[in-house]
Amino acid sequence: MDIASLVGFILAYVIIGSAIMLGGPFILFVNAPSILIVVGGTFAVTLMRVTMANFLGSFKIGLKGFFYKLDKPQNLIDETVELASVARKEGILALEGREISNSFLERGIGLCIDGHAPEVVNNLLSKDINMSIERHTIGADMFKAMAVYAPAMGMIGTLVGLVQMLSNMSDPASIGPSMAVALLTTLYGAVIANAFASPLAEKLILISGYEKLNKSLILESIAGIQEGTNPRVLKQLLNAYLPESKRQEEE
Amino acid sequence: MDIASLVGFILAYVIIGSAIMLGGPFILFVNAPSILIVVGGTFAVTLMRVTMANFLGSFKIGLKGFFYKLDKPQNLIDETVELASVARKEGILALEGREISNSFLERGIGLCIDGHAPEVVNNLLSKDINMSIERHTIGADMFKAMAVYAPAMGMIGTLVGLVQMLSNMSDPASIGPSMAVALLTTLYGAVIANAFASPLAEKLILISGYEKLNKSLILESIAGIQEGTNPRVLKQLLNAYLPESKRQEEE
Amino acid sequence: MDIASLVGFILAYVIIGSAIMLGGPFILFVNAPSILIVVGGTFAVTLMRVTMANFLGSFKIGLKGFFYKLDKPQNLIDETVELASVARKEGILALEGREISNSFLERGIGLCIDGHAPEVVNNLLSKDINMSIERHTIGADMFKAMAVYAPAMGMIGTLVGLVQMLSNMSDPASIGPSMAVALLTTLYGAVIANAFASPLAEKLILISGYEKLNKSLILESIAGIQEGTNPRVLKQLLNAYLPESKRQEEE
Amino acid sequence: MDIASLVGFILAYVIIGSAIMLGGPFILFVNAPSILIVVGGTFAVTLMRVTMANFLGSFKIGLKGFFYKLDKPQNLIDETVELASVARKEGILALEGREISNSFLERGIGLCIDGHAPEVVNNLLSKDINMSIERHTIGADMFKAMAVYAPAMGMIGTLVGLVQMLSNMSDPASIGPSMAVALLTTLYGAVIANAFASPLAEKLILISGYEKLNKSLILESIAGIQEGTNPRVLKQLLNAYLPESKRQEEE
Amino acid sequence: MDIASLVGFILAYVIIGSAIMLGGPFILFVNAPSILIVVGGTFAVTLMRVTMANFLGSFKIGLKGFFYKLDKPQNLIDETVELASVARKEGILALEGREISNSFLERGIGLCIDGHAPEVVNNLLSKDINMSIERHTIGADMFKAMAVYAPAMGMIGTLVGLVQMLSNMSDPASIGPSMAVALLTTLYGAVIANAFASPLAEKLILISGYEKLNKSLILESIAGIQEGTNPRVLKQLLNAYLPESKRQEEE
Repeated sequence: MDIASLVGFILAYVIIGSAIMLGGPFILFVNAPSILIVVGGTFAVTLMRVTMANFLGSFKIGLKGFFYKLDKPQNLIDETVELASVARKEGILALEGREISNSFLERGIGLCIDGHAPEVVNNLLSKDINMSIERHTIGADMFKAMAVYAPAMGMIGTLVGLVQMLSNMSDPASIGPSMAVALLTTLYGAVIANAFASPLAEKLILISGYEKLNKSLILESIAGIQEGTNPRVLKQLLNAYLPESKRQEEE
Repeated sequence: MDIASLVGFILAYVIIGSAIMLGGPFILFVNAPSILIVVGGTFAVTLMRVTMANFLGSFKIGLKGFFYKLDKPQNLIDETVELASVARKEGILALEGREISNSFLERGIGLCIDGHAPEVVNNLLSKDINMSIERHTIGADMFKAMAVYAPAMGMIGTLVGLVQMLSNMSDPASIGPSMAVALLTTLYGAVIANAFASPLAEKLILISGYEKLNKSLILESIAGIQEGTNPRVLKQLLNAYLPESKRQEEE
Repeated sequence: MDIASLVGFILAYVIIGSAIMLGGPFILFVNAPSILIVVGGTFAVTLMRVTMANFLGSFKIGLKGFFYKLDKPQNLIDETVELASVARKEGILALEGREISNSFLERGIGLCIDGHAPEVVNNLLSKDINMSIERHTIGADMFKAMAVYAPAMGMIGTLVGLVQMLSNMSDPASIGPSMAVALLTTLYGAVIANAFASPLAEKLILISGYEKLNKSLILESIAGIQEGTNPRVLKQLLNAYLPESKRQEEE
Repeated sequence: MDIASLVGFILAYVIIGSAIMLGGPFILFVNAPSILIVVGGTFAVTLMRVTMANFLGSFKIGLKGFFYKLDKPQNLIDETVELASVARKEGILALEGREISNSFLERGIGLCIDGHAPEVVNNLLSKDINMSIERHTIGADMFKAMAVYAPAMGMIGTLVGLVQMLSNMSDPASIGPSMAVALLTTLYGAVIANAFASPLAEKLILISGYEKLNKSLILESIAGIQEGTNPRVLKQLLNAYLPESKRQEEE
Repeated sequence: MDIASLVGFILAYVIIGSAIMLGGPFILFVNAPSILIVVGGTFAVTLMRVTMANFLGSFKIGLKGFFYKLDKPQNLIDETVELASVARKEGILALEGREISNSFLERGIGLCIDGHAPEVVNNLLSKDINMSIERHTIGADMFKAMAVYAPAMGMIGTLVGLVQMLSNMSDPASIGPSMAVALLTTLYGAVIANAFASPLAEKLILISGYEKLNKSLILESIAGIQEGTNPRVLKQLLNAYLPESKRQEEE
C-alpha cells in the first residue's frame, strides 16, 4: 500500500492546526452552524447531482484513495512471461487450475482456456477496462464536485453572516467577532476543497490510470499467450511498460 | 425512481434556511427588487441564448432531473437474452407481438422484424442515440448557463446597490443595512447557481450518460439477435455493462 | 423567426433598469468617461485580435443572432422525400428547374443534375459545411472575446478611479461618490458581458449547430436521391433528425 | 496588410490614457518600482517556461501579429487554376521556371517537377504544415503565458505594497496614497494582459489558422494538378474555401 | 544546456526582492508560521494526490526543467542520414558497434540489427515514446498541482489570520500589523505558484514536447533505414522537422 495520501492528509491537518494554535485559541475556529452549512450543504448539493447508489458508494471509493494496493507492473510481467512459457510448451490448457495473483489476468486466462477466439477475448476484456474506468470516473467526479461546492457553500455562509452583521451594527464592539464568525465558513470551504476533496479526486484519477495501465499490460500479454509469442519477445514487448531504470536486462 | 436529487435539493434549502434562522430573523433575507434582478435577469439572459422552444422545454427536462426512472441494465440484459433465445429457436419473426418493456428495444426489434439489414438497423438506432444525446445536452446546457448567469446577475445587483449607497452616505446609520441589501443579490445568485442550476445540469448529464449506456447495451444485443449469437455468449458479452459485483454467475 | 433572443435582451435591460430606478435616480448610473473606457476599450482590444473584415462583418453576424430564420427539419424532410420520389420515378434530370426552398439543397440538387459522381457531390457539400461552420465560429469568437474583455476593461476603469480617489482624500465627503463612479465601469463591464456579448455568442453557436444539423440532413438526403433510395426508407432514415414526438407516423 | 491590430492597439491606449487624464494628472499613474515588478517580473517568469531561442524569437513573432500579410485565397485559386491549365495541356514540366507568388505553392510545384509520387509530395507538404503550426503555437503560447503572469505579478506587487502600508500606519494621511501606489501594479498587470498580451496571442492563433487554410488549399490544388484534374472542376472544388459571396460565378 | 529557466528564475526573485527592499525592510516579509502553512501545506496536499514514488521522483524531474539538455534535431538528422548511407551500402549489420550519440536512436538501431521486423521495431519504439510522455506528464502534473494548491493554502492562511485578528480587536494599533501578517501567506502562495511551480510545469511540458519531436524524427529515420530509403530522400523528409531557416540546402 502506498502511504502518500494518508501521510499527506494527516500532515495537512497537523500543519493547519499548528498554524491556528500558534496564533490563538483553537476554539475560535469551531462554530456549529458554520459547520452545518458548509459540510451539510456540500453533501446536500453533491447528493443532488448523483444517484443514491453513487453517493453511498463514494465513501468506499474514497477510502480506496487512501488504502489502495496496486500490483507492480514488474510482477505482472514476470507472472505473465512465466504463464506464456508454460502455455507455449504444454499448451494453453496447462494453465488450468494455476493460481493467478491478479483477478483480471485470471479472468483473461480463463477465457483463453474456455477456448474463445482471440478477438472475443480482446473484445470482452477491453469492454471490462472501459466500464471499470467509467465507474472510477464517477467516483472521482463526486469528489471533484465537492471541491467545487464546498467553497461555494462557504461563500454562501459568509454572505449570510455578513448580511446579519450589517443589518445590526448598533454595537460596534460586536462587529469584529461577528465578521470573524462569518469568515469561518469560507475557511471551512477552502479547507474541505483543498485539503480533502480535490486531492482525493486527483488521487482516484491517478489510481484509475495505473489500473488501466496494468490492465492494458495484461490485455497485451494475454494476446501474446494466445498467439504463442516467444516468451523472450513478449518480455521485451511488455518491458516498454516499465521506466528504463526498472527494466531487467536479459542476459 | 432515484430520490437522491429530490432529497439533496430539499436538504440544501433546509440547511441554508436553518443557518439563516439560527442567526436572526428570516425576513432580513427577503427583498423583492433583489429577487427581481437575480431571478428575472437570469431567466432573461438565459432566454437570449436559446430558442423559445428550448427554453419552454427546459422546465420539463429539469423535472426529469428530479423524477426520472431508468431501466436497470440487469433487467435489460435478462429481457434481451430471453428475446435472443426465442429468436434463435423460432426465428426473428416469433418476436412479433411480444410485449417489450423498453421503447428503444421495442423500436430495434421492430426494425429487425421488418426485415431491415443489420447495417441499416445499426445505422438508424445509432443516429437515434446521437440525436437523443444532442437533445439532452441542450437541456443540460441551459441549466449550466443559469449557473453562470445567476452569480453574474447577483454581482450586477450588488454593484447597483453599492453605487446607490456610496452616492448617498449622509446618514451613516443607513450604510450597514444598505450594504446588507446590496449583498443579498450576490447571495441569491450563489444559491441559485450552487444549490439548483449547477447540480441539476450535472444530474441531467449523468442521466443522459446512463441512458446512452442502456441504449448501447440494447444496440449490441440487437446486433447479437440479428446475427443469431448464442444467448449464453450474448449474456457474457452484455455482462461487461455491469459492475463485477452484480454479474450473475452462470451455473 | 425565433423571438427568444430579442425578448430576452429587452427583458434583461428592463429588469436591470427597473432595479436601478427602484433605488434612486437613473442619472447616477450614467458617466461619459466610464462609458468611453469600457465600451471603447472593449471594441479596441477586440479589434486587436481579429482582422478588419472580421470585425466589420461581426455586426451583421450579431444581428443574425437576434433575427435569424432556420428551415424546419420537418419541412426539409418533406421536401427532399418529394424530390426523391420524383427522381426515382422520372430520373434525376426531372428535378431540373424545380423550385427549391433551401439554397444548400438547391446547390446539392444542381450538382446531381450536372452529373457529378456521388463522392464528388459529397466532397463539395461537406467542405461547404465545414467552411460555413468555421466562418460562424469566427463571429461567435468575437462576441466571446468581448465577454472576456468588457469586465477586464471595467476593472481597469475601476482601478484608475480608485487610484485617483486614494491619491486625493482631503475631502472625506467626496470619497463615497468618487468610489461610486469608480465602480460604474465594473458594472458596465459586467452588464455588457453578461447581458449582451456572452449570450449572443452562445446563441450564434446554437444557430450554427442547427444549421449544421439541417445541412447534414440535406447531405444525407442528396446521397439517398443519387443512390435512388426508396423514398419511404429515406423518410424513415431522415426522421432520426426529429425528436420522437414530431415524427410523422407512416400509415 | 491588415491594420486591425495596429489600430486596435493604439486606440486602446489612447482610450485608457484619456480616461486617466479626464480624472487627474497622468503622473499619478507612473511609478518606477511598480513598472519594474510587473514588466520585469512578467518577462522573468515567462522566460522560465520557454527556451532562450523561443523567447528571443517571440518578439519577431509578436510583430507579425501587427504587420503580417496573407495571400488572399481568391488569388491563390486563380494562380493554381492557371497552373493546372498549363500542366494539363503541356505536362507538369512546363511549370518549371514559372514565377510563383506563394513560397509554399512554389515548394509543392517544385516537388512535382522533381517527379516525386503524389503520396510523397502530400506527405512532405502535410508535415510542413504541421510543423509550421507547431511553431506558431509556441509563439502564441508565450503571449498567452504573459497574459496569465502579468496580472499575477500585479497582484504580487499589490500585496507587497499592502503589507508595507499595513505594517506602518502611524501616519493616517499617507494611507490613501500608499494604497494608490499599491494598486498601480494590479492596474499595470491588467493593462498588459488585456490590452497587449491576450489579444496578440489570439491574433497569432487567428493568423496561423488562416495560413493553415491557405496551405490546405494549396495542398489540395497540387494534388489536383498532379492527378490532372480538369481546371474547371478544380476551381469548383477550391471555391469551397471562399465564402459564398466571393465565389466567382462560372459563366 | 538552455539557460532560460535558470536565468528567468533568478531574475524573478531578484526583481521581487528589489521591489520589496525599495519600499521598506525585508524582515517584514519573513514570518515562520506563514511559511509553514504555505510551503508545508502545499507539500502535504500535493503528496495526498500522488504516490510516494512520484513525489520523491518529482524533485529530480524538477531539476530537469532547469538543467536539461536536448539533442539538436539538425544533429540527429545528420547522424541518421549518415547511418542510412552506411546501411544502404554495406547492409544494416554494418551499423553494429558504431558509436551513437542518442540513446533512443541507439536502441532503435539495436533492434534493427537484432533482425526484428519493421512493424515490431515501430511498435516497440512507439510504445517507448508513449510511456515516456506519460511519465513526463506525471512530473509536470505535480508542479501544476502545486501551482493550484499554493494560492489555496495562502488563502487559508490569510483567513486564519483574519479570524484571529477580528476576534480580538481591543488594540486598534495592532490591527494593521496583524493584517499585514495575515496577507503574507497570500503573497507566499502567489509567489510559489507564479514564480516557481506554474512556469516549471509548463517548461517540463515544453521539454517533453521537444523530446517527443526528436523521438518521432528518430522513429521515422529508423523506418527509412530499415526500408533502405535513399539517404537524400530521407534527409528531405526529415528536414520537415526543422524550421525553414535552418534547413541545409542540398547542393
